[in-house]
Amino acid sequence: MISNIETDRWIMMGLIGFAVGLLGFILHQIIERISVLKWSTTKEYLDEGKVSVGWMFCSAYSMAFAVFAAAVIVLWKPSAGGSGLPEVTAFLNGTHVNNIFNLKTLVAKFISCTAAIGCGMPIGPEGPMIHMGAIMGAGLSQGTSDLFNFKLPFFERFRNPEDRRNFISAGVAAGVAAAFGAPVGGLLFCMEEVSSFWSNTLSWQIFFCCIIATSTSDLFNSSFQEFKSIGSFGAFQTSRYILFNVYDAVDINILMFIPSAILGVLGGLLGSAFTILYLKMTRLRKRCLASISSPRLVQFIRLAEPALVMIVMSSFSIFLPMAFKCINYTCMPSDSNTVSEFCVNDTTNKYDSQLREKEETFHTCDTGTNYMNGTTLFSNSTYNELALLLFSSKDEAMKNLYLRNSHRMFNYGPLFVSLIIYFFMVIWAAGTSVAAGILVPMLVIGALYGRILGLVIVDMFGVHLDESYWSWMDPGAFALIGSASFFAGVARLAPAITSIMMELTNDLKVLLPVMTAVVVAKWVGDYFTHPFFHALLELQCIPFLNQQPNVRIDKKNVQLELFSAADIMAFPVVTVNLVEHVPTLAQKLLDNTHNGFPVLRELPDGNCVFHGLITRSELMVMLENKDIFKPGPFTPLDDRSLDIAPIGYDCMVRGPQEKEEIHEMFLEQFVDRDSPFWNHYVDMTPYFNISAMSISCNFSLHRAYTLISALGLRHLTVVDDSNQVQGMITRKDLMGFHMVDTLGSIMETRSYFR
Amino acid sequence: MISNIETDRWIMMGLIGFAVGLLGFILHQIIERISVLKWSTTKEYLDEGKVSVGWMFCSAYSMAFAVFAAAVIVLWKPSAGGSGLPEVTAFLNGTHVNNIFNLKTLVAKFISCTAAIGCGMPIGPEGPMIHMGAIMGAGLSQGTSDLFNFKLPFFERFRNPEDRRNFISAGVAAGVAAAFGAPVGGLLFCMEEVSSFWSNTLSWQIFFCCIIATSTSDLFNSSFQEFKSIGSFGAFQTSRYILFNVYDAVDINILMFIPSAILGVLGGLLGSAFTILYLKMTRLRKRCLASISSPRLVQFIRLAEPALVMIVMSSFSIFLPMAFKCINYTCMPSDSNTVSEFCVNDTTNKYDSQLREKEETFHTCDTGTNYMNGTTLFSNSTYNELALLLFSSKDEAMKNLYLRNSHRMFNYGPLFVSLIIYFFMVIWAAGTSVAAGILVPMLVIGALYGRILGLVIVDMFGVHLDESYWSWMDPGAFALIGSASFFAGVARLAPAITSIMMELTNDLKVLLPVMTAVVVAKWVGDYFTHPFFHALLELQCIPFLNQQPNVRIDKKNVQLELFSAADIMAFPVVTVNLVEHVPTLAQKLLDNTHNGFPVLRELPDGNCVFHGLITRSELMVMLENKDIFKPGPFTPLDDRSLDIAPIGYDCMVRGPQEKEEIHEMFLEQFVDRDSPFWNHYVDMTPYFNISAMSISCNFSLHRAYTLISALGLRHLTVVDDSNQVQGMITRKDLMGFHMVDTLGSIMETRSYFR
Repeated sequence: MISNIETDRWIMMGLIGFAVGLLGFILHQIIERISVLKWSTTKEYLDEGKVSVGWMFCSAYSMAFAVFAAAVIVLWKPSAGGSGLPEVTAFLNGTHVNNIFNLKTLVAKFISCTAAIGCGMPIGPEGPMIHMGAIMGAGLSQGTSDLFNFKLPFFERFRNPEDRRNFISAGVAAGVAAAFGAPVGGLLFCMEEVSSFWSNTLSWQIFFCCIIATSTSDLFNSSFQEFKSIGSFGAFQTSRYILFNVYDAVDINILMFIPSAILGVLGGLLGSAFTILYLKMTRLRKRCLASISSPRLVQFIRLAEPALVMIVMSSFSIFLPMAFKCINYTCMPSDSNTVSEFCVNDTTNKYDSQLREKEETFHTCDTGTNYMNGTTLFSNSTYNELALLLFSSKDEAMKNLYLRNSHRMFNYGPLFVSLIIYFFMVIWAAGTSVAAGILVPMLVIGALYGRILGLVIVDMFGVHLDESYWSWMDPGAFALIGSASFFAGVARLAPAITSIMMELTNDLKVLLPVMTAVVVAKWVGDYFTHPFFHALLELQCIPFLNQQPNVRIDKKNVQLELFSAADIMAFPVVTVNLVEHVPTLAQKLLDNTHNGFPVLRELPDGNCVFHGLITRSELMVMLENKDIFKPGPFTPLDDRSLDIAPIGYDCMVRGPQEKEEIHEMFLEQFVDRDSPFWNHYVDMTPYFNISAMSISCNFSLHRAYTLISALGLRHLTVVDDSNQVQGMITRKDLMGFHMVDTLGSIMETRSYFR
Repeated sequence: MISNIETDRWIMMGLIGFAVGLLGFILHQIIERISVLKWSTTKEYLDEGKVSVGWMFCSAYSMAFAVFAAAVIVLWKPSAGGSGLPEVTAFLNGTHVNNIFNLKTLVAKFISCTAAIGCGMPIGPEGPMIHMGAIMGAGLSQGTSDLFNFKLPFFERFRNPEDRRNFISAGVAAGVAAAFGAPVGGLLFCMEEVSSFWSNTLSWQIFFCCIIATSTSDLFNSSFQEFKSIGSFGAFQTSRYILFNVYDAVDINILMFIPSAILGVLGGLLGSAFTILYLKMTRLRKRCLASISSPRLVQFIRLAEPALVMIVMSSFSIFLPMAFKCINYTCMPSDSNTVSEFCVNDTTNKYDSQLREKEETFHTCDTGTNYMNGTTLFSNSTYNELALLLFSSKDEAMKNLYLRNSHRMFNYGPLFVSLIIYFFMVIWAAGTSVAAGILVPMLVIGALYGRILGLVIVDMFGVHLDESYWSWMDPGAFALIGSASFFAGVARLAPAITSIMMELTNDLKVLLPVMTAVVVAKWVGDYFTHPFFHALLELQCIPFLNQQPNVRIDKKNVQLELFSAADIMAFPVVTVNLVEHVPTLAQKLLDNTHNGFPVLRELPDGNCVFHGLITRSELMVMLENKDIFKPGPFTPLDDRSLDIAPIGYDCMVRGPQEKEEIHEMFLEQFVDRDSPFWNHYVDMTPYFNISAMSISCNFSLHRAYTLISALGLRHLTVVDDSNQVQGMITRKDLMGFHMVDTLGSIMETRSYFR
């Protein structure tokens, strides 16, 4: 039976899903609006032959939005920059990151992201959607806002760390689910990449949240285009709710695993190169900006950079296609390999819908006319290959790349040119001061080299359109596998990527080759560098604790079983007594910035032993409630029953009321000799955490690590055999670089003595 | 970079995947062979008008196989009975179950499962495939066999509990992947249902194992039918590698969520009813068999029961369809709702392939002739609705039920009749003494009531064949959603069921309604009863530890935070000293059956404090190595360096060499006063587990539970503030019924004193 609070949690999950889904819908529609206006207007100028006017319009339009997108971040909310994914991951791992979950960040992120993507920057909305989803999860569930200064009483029940964490996880999953229309993918992405703590109950609730998010965003996106109703509200239309829907999926063949593995290798290589170049680029940018003394100039550069990106991109989009010829639509009859005029069979209608959609992308080529001959549609229209890839939104390019039975639609030239442009422009653009993700651009890059490999295979073995043994040699299918391989080479996720690719394309038949490419890309990628998002965590100096320790000294993995907890622990430890003298306590809080303090209890034999743990925040609350002080030393309470605790549980959880800036001033009033509390004591019995873990000095370091990461501990007290406190291990002590230093010197000493 | 042993692990994962895939292929082919022979021969008799001969053949054939399937279990290997899933789950949770991973069990399971399913029992091969996969994972990775009495040296590296557990998990996942052709589904099923411990590395390796397993079984199944090559080896054929492939998937509509939720409710209700009835039936059978004194008679009954099932099933299959009329193939033209002759458009060919496949299932009806009229194919052939569901293998029935654009293919009568037959026959058959799973039968049951609801909707709102707003009202789609709902109502899995359903049917468009039905079925089902597989664990008295505690007293959840570790711990504890007197040690081992003993160390002040833990198996090994005994008391070693341990690590891990039956005799030699070891002592310093956890008496019971389940501990020592052992918590102390007893009496005492 479901208890009351459980029901409330489910309702809240549904609410978060709905809100994130709606946000995804609005985001999508605004981006579509901005994007369509840009390309259609530019196309009009080109049709009129005014190429330079078209370029000027295109550049100015894009620049305006790009500068606006950067301005929101640079001048207003810097915390909304980037994708936000590393920060959310770090938070869910147990690290406090300032300012990432407030309403202003959400608004800034939304504005910056829509403007930047709408104007055509080579970035994607998925990272920001994840961050926005997380903010919604945090905001909705807590029912509190510093900005509007309110706290709703109903949400009191969710104001604890665990529920907050769970709702944020749900928001993350809903973000992916709404952005990709991939509910299962969202769930798995959250589980595999973002979340550090997981349970079956949470899995179900997030599952539900993802259903609602995807349904909401798909439903509205199916019914509206640029906010205008396109009729039949309620019906989900394939082309609108499956982002890159594949028609005419081909059956696979065992031979297909060979090119899939090759794509996996390429994915691992290019993915690592992407990660390394991105990090180099970001460090270079940081150094350059740091070397400039004038803050005005720094701001200007940060605003100008996206504008520059857009000028370059606009020039590429408009002038580069002109270097390529307009070519006829071609179609391979199944019985021969000759290239004929573009032919569309009226009954199967394979290309019909795509043809209509593509009208905007003819660039400067002649659209020609269509005519019927019997049941067959012929067309003498021409198209520009590169324009199909560059002179349109990324989504359109993706659909074209994934198109089946279109073996020679793109040739090597345009594919290579776009691959190089996308690869480097994404690295450049994603690091600029706008809210930007890289998931969709990654798919484009992968699809480009996937299609190149497909074309190589077609050139080697010919075109096979009939449903024969060789129909698997379809460049469109390899484009899809290529996307998965690059995604995997960069992000190193397994079931999440597979699910997302399937849900994006509705092509389940290609599942096994996709999985093969993913696992090969992971192998190759792991050989060269970290996963992208983990590299970002390191770049931002976030103390992220991996599930498994990974300490490498002299290029060898260090076996942590050979070390003990005492080797890595920090000491001496600042401890507090069960009944503590108020000024001494205040002085201890002033003297250091520790967050957890072991509580000691005096045994009859005079030894002071470990008894529990209390946090700085709890101690602050106790000091704020001066009525619990009592003069003179006294014996602690015997009973821990909550009925008799003078400070309520909710006060304790809420934390100190004083602002953090004045904590020092607040504490100093107690250490003053003239303070009225000079002889007062405070009893911690009702408040400290009696279930704090402790381990012995000899405890294996490997197991200590597992303990901290599996249970999400922040403090682990190390005691000796008689239970006296010897040291403390926190997550900072377990960071890679710190372990390498400490254990390295221990190893040197050990080998010295041997 | 991947270290050496890591590479070996990947290779082993691939090997397990290949072996399980091959096994799945062979299983599938044999079942197909047995099944096709049965139905085609019976059909021949029916065609000749010899109905009673047909019935006799069908019954005798089925009975022979059913008795054979049961005989393998009853007379040879009882451990191979049932699905094996609960036992594997229990093992991975940390419970030792005898005999489940040996080669004979594998052979028995394989024979029993193929015979029983081939002859048409209403059971599925998936449960047994999971168990067989697990056995392969365990067997291949350990490279050892008691039966053939060998141990391969290469596999030494994998002979530790963690690797063994991981390879078994991989085998489980590969089993699902091979049985359903669902690699992602297999991975998620293993993660959600079977495995208790999971890591990202394991996830990747299982992902790889699943690719290999699915590729292998799909590849061979695509190329062979009943072990005869069907040409084009290497090409994966949709109809052979996607079990219930759906053609012409329909776009969904927001209104579709209403019937999906209704199906969810039905799934929860019927799923709970199924679970409860199955348990009742199993208990009844146990009681009946227990009341019979003659073991011969018990064996006979256990052999006769499957035979009886098959007689009943054969009668239903042959005679029941005769009670229904042969009806014309019907087809709704899109412009009207009138029923016309069966028409097939030659260019779209929607029914063509299905029509050909169905020829065997016309039962006693006239197959008629097909004729062309222009581009339209007409046919005056008739078919028997019930025969399509009962007079064929379950797989054929499923394909028919999932068929799209076949609105009135089945009417209420046949659907209701088959639903009732399947529902009760599955409950009966799955509990008999054969190796049987229930996954595919569950899908059939769900598809039947799903199709009934679809028919109700069609009757209310008419047939909509054109791709309009109303095309979602397709009974075939609701059959699919129904399957998912029943699956979820019984098994309560989220992403696993969703993935399996998608991979089984290749219909991604219906994803959101499927997810809705799954989550609603879970809600409704949870209200009534446990998930099926957890109920089975309870039925078999396996001490399975859930991730989250769930203790209910007087229909209320008990908040474990209000209790302490001391409330539930077992005491007094049998402890051993760091240097122990050999006869005393042997006596301790003889006096109890505990598996873990806290090791005490004497402090300078004379207190004996907790210092670590040693297991019975380790103590046995120490006693077997008599050369480590030393006379007289002495001080323990100071250094724990492994170099100086006289017994090697591998000996310790391998466990005692003496057989378990003679342990008592072995130990008694030491307690004899005349034993040469009477004054000898043994030093445990190099061998005990120094990293054993301990918690204080006041530690919260909830956190103690989390600690044990999250870290998979078997023993948790409870100590007081001065680190002296007070008690011990093992998983048996945390079982639901035990907690209810202990905490219930504590609660009574507490309320008495208030």
